Amino acid sequence: MSNGHSPSESGTNLDPWYDLYADRTAGLSASEVRALFAVASRPEVVSLAGGMPFVSALPTDLVGGAFERVMREEGPQALQYGSGQGIPQLREHILDIMALEGIRASVDDVVVTTGSQHALELVTKLFINPGDVVLAEGPSYVTAMVVFKSFQAEVEHVLMDEHGLIPEALRQRIAEVKAQGRTIKFLYTIPSFSNPAGVTLTWERRLEILEICRANDILVLEDDPYGLLYFDSPPPQAMRSVEEEGVIYLGTFSKTLAPGFRVGWALAPHAIREKLILANEAAVLSPSSFSQYMITEYLNTADWRGQIDTFRGIYRERRDAMLSALDEYLPQLSWTVPNGGFYIWATLPDHLDSKAMLPRAVRELVAYTPGTAFYADGNGRNNMRLSFCYPTPEFIREGIRRLSVVINGEMDLLRTFSQTAPLRSIAPARDAKLGIASPPSNLA
Amino acid sequence: MSNGHSPSESGTNLDPWYDLYADRTAGLSASEVRALFAVASRPEVVSLAGGMPFVSALPTDLVGGAFERVMREEGPQALQYGSGQGIPQLREHILDIMALEGIRASVDDVVVTTGSQHALELVTKLFINPGDVVLAEGPSYVTAMVVFKSFQAEVEHVLMDEHGLIPEALRQRIAEVKAQGRTIKFLYTIPSFSNPAGVTLTWERRLEILEICRANDILVLEDDPYGLLYFDSPPPQAMRSVEEEGVIYLGTFSKTLAPGFRVGWALAPHAIREKLILANEAAVLSPSSFSQYMITEYLNTADWRGQIDTFRGIYRERRDAMLSALDEYLPQLSWTVPNGGFYIWATLPDHLDSKAMLPRAVRELVAYTPGTAFYADGNGRNNMRLSFCYPTPEFIREGIRRLSVVINGEMDLLRTFSQTAPLRSIAPARDAKLGIASPPSNLA
Repeated sequence: MSNGHSPSESGTNLDPWYDLYADRTAGLSASEVRALFAVASRPEVVSLAGGMPFVSALPTDLVGGAFERVMREEGPQALQYGSGQGIPQLREHILDIMALEGIRASVDDVVVTTGSQHALELVTKLFINPGDVVLAEGPSYVTAMVVFKSFQAEVEHVLMDEHGLIPEALRQRIAEVKAQGRTIKFLYTIPSFSNPAGVTLTWERRLEILEICRANDILVLEDDPYGLLYFDSPPPQAMRSVEEEGVIYLGTFSKTLAPGFRVGWALAPHAIREKLILANEAAVLSPSSFSQYMITEYLNTADWRGQIDTFRGIYRERRDAMLSALDEYLPQLSWTVPNGGFYIWATLPDHLDSKAMLPRAVRELVAYTPGTAFYADGNGRNNMRLSFCYPTPEFIREGIRRLSVVINGEMDLLRTFSQTAPLRSIAPARDAKLGIASPPSNLA
Repeated sequence: MSNGHSPSESGTNLDPWYDLYADRTAGLSASEVRALFAVASRPEVVSLAGGMPFVSALPTDLVGGAFERVMREEGPQALQYGSGQGIPQLREHILDIMALEGIRASVDDVVVTTGSQHALELVTKLFINPGDVVLAEGPSYVTAMVVFKSFQAEVEHVLMDEHGLIPEALRQRIAEVKAQGRTIKFLYTIPSFSNPAGVTLTWERRLEILEICRANDILVLEDDPYGLLYFDSPPPQAMRSVEEEGVIYLGTFSKTLAPGFRVGWALAPHAIREKLILANEAAVLSPSSFSQYMITEYLNTADWRGQIDTFRGIYRERRDAMLSALDEYLPQLSWTVPNGGFYIWATLPDHLDSKAMLPRAVRELVAYTPGTAFYADGNGRNNMRLSFCYPTPEFIREGIRRLSVVINGEMDLLRTFSQTAPLRSIAPARDAKLGIASPPSNLA
């Protein structure tokens, strides 16, 4: 009260409605990725930060053909409200797509959503009371964690290595959380080509993790945006392919077609699906009919499997470009080698802080996402996510070269300072060993 | 435990995840309107139940022209993720549209949402703690109340008459709720051509209600889907036109263009708008770029004001058809006379129960929405919402004729029974005087 001009207090005082917000709104903060978008969108910056698919690879006349047929044959329905579950023809196609990952399901159990992001929001709304625990990979998808926190969930990370989540670490974390008297509602996981780590859960671990969750009455929220975008060989089949009652599976057209339509889906156990539809209706009445009819027509008439092959080829080439540039320019780093998806997870030499380094990287005209964005607990300081989905191979190579200039500069600085000051005053890395590239030996 | 086969218990037991749902999920139930959609969509039924705009009045080649230009000139952006606030060009257009209702605002304070329904959801998520009170007209929009309850708000109705919300009733209700120690977060209102009542708040009352809310630190959530769809003369200017800090204004393209795009918006005070964008990003990452570019191009190039005039003419003709059919076939009812929008609110003779009567109406091949759907407190039994937006004038006339057969049959039955049984055993109307057509004399 005595110092009304301190920055935090004046920020508060400027909002006359400050006292009226719900408790959950305190958990709704801007992600580190969000602030990056503005900076990294300048054309001279090579952005290895975002997760935008390369939609320019879509032939626009192909989408145009779909539009004409939709308007001619189903215009009034495409312009009208639809059902809260989504149009049946699209849900039929979604079954075909999920069958590619071994999933068999009823068209009745698919709920179309406004991107799979909205399925995440709706599932969280249905299940999370304040203080409930969500288990998630460490590191995990940043905007999933924003959703969980916006409903006052507490995110607890489970260690992963190059084979994905570590079952023994999951058992241990469940036991710890339960011993504290807290309630675990679900495990959120991206088992194939995870965001941000780029790693894939092995088949044996999928089975073991399902078994652990079943034994502990923990629902599995399987998020699978990248499963069809493999490079060399397909990932193991979806967790949902062997477990129907305990898994909510989320899929999307954002990566295999285009995110601009905002169409994704949830496949949920029967009772949960009913509630998902009600939550969807409350939130948006119905997902966009226009987008749904467009995608249905595209799937009806276009070679969508061929288009996915095209995307695979493009992203494989870009991953290869990034891996070879890392080999050449940044041998002092370690990194994951993804077999699909959009991301490589890199680990910096000890005591480098990727978040503190970012402004200097942007000055060198390259951007990435600092590792801390993907942890709810402050971890990830010496990690970064490098996206190879959007820039061309040439720009990826140039971006990694620029990044090497920054990192080498940091290391020079570090060597200089380490002769005069204690290292941890420069970069207080909390627990570098939790980085996924080198889990503690007792768990790996 | 001793009777595992009772219907409610077995319903529970069938869902293995029943114990895991959040507390708020108990408030998420199917609306009465929802169940109706399935029945009333049979082609032989004249549905006066839904709120579907008559999108067939849109020239499809006009939308098609927009599509071609979007794909040619902005294809990659239209197919990509966008910002959580919506594209700037569209927000500029939205300022022009709101200016028609007297609103002056900054393009920075507009947030594009997945229909205005999603703006309702996001605002509710930002403000409502369990047990908080939302004030709303009685009767009020059914799916707004579903949203409020899904976040555990308690809806308290405020009496309205043919001039809209009654300021003195608002004062009284605020005092009552405050005396109970409960927290009022906002007043939800549809001041122009309200859903379901079809009435419009006078200018004097708009000012008085803003003053009351200001004095009591209550935010006004002004929902305005129908304001541009007036028949004879425009409604008073928006409440937001005179009060910037205390009003969140919601608009939509669902009624002036088409709901299939799912594009609406919120105009919010600066501090709230920031939080709305964060909530929007968490929920859907960004509203559909594709839909936004389509609508932007439509607004850029088409005679959208002329199209709204076309809609006005169509809906005016349908309102007239409904009014004259009511005059002719159902003189024993009273009803509101809307000067815009989609709905007439009818009051049945005492002791008729519109909900109990509905199955008999559907048997006569006509559907409507029972009044109880629009009250959180069980009121509205002898009211019904009659929609004139979708059926042609001929079908409206036939629908009202069929309805008269049902109502006359009910009244015959009532007269027969009233000679042998007490009236209230047939239709226990709780407080018929709260119907908006005839408010208590001390408040009207």
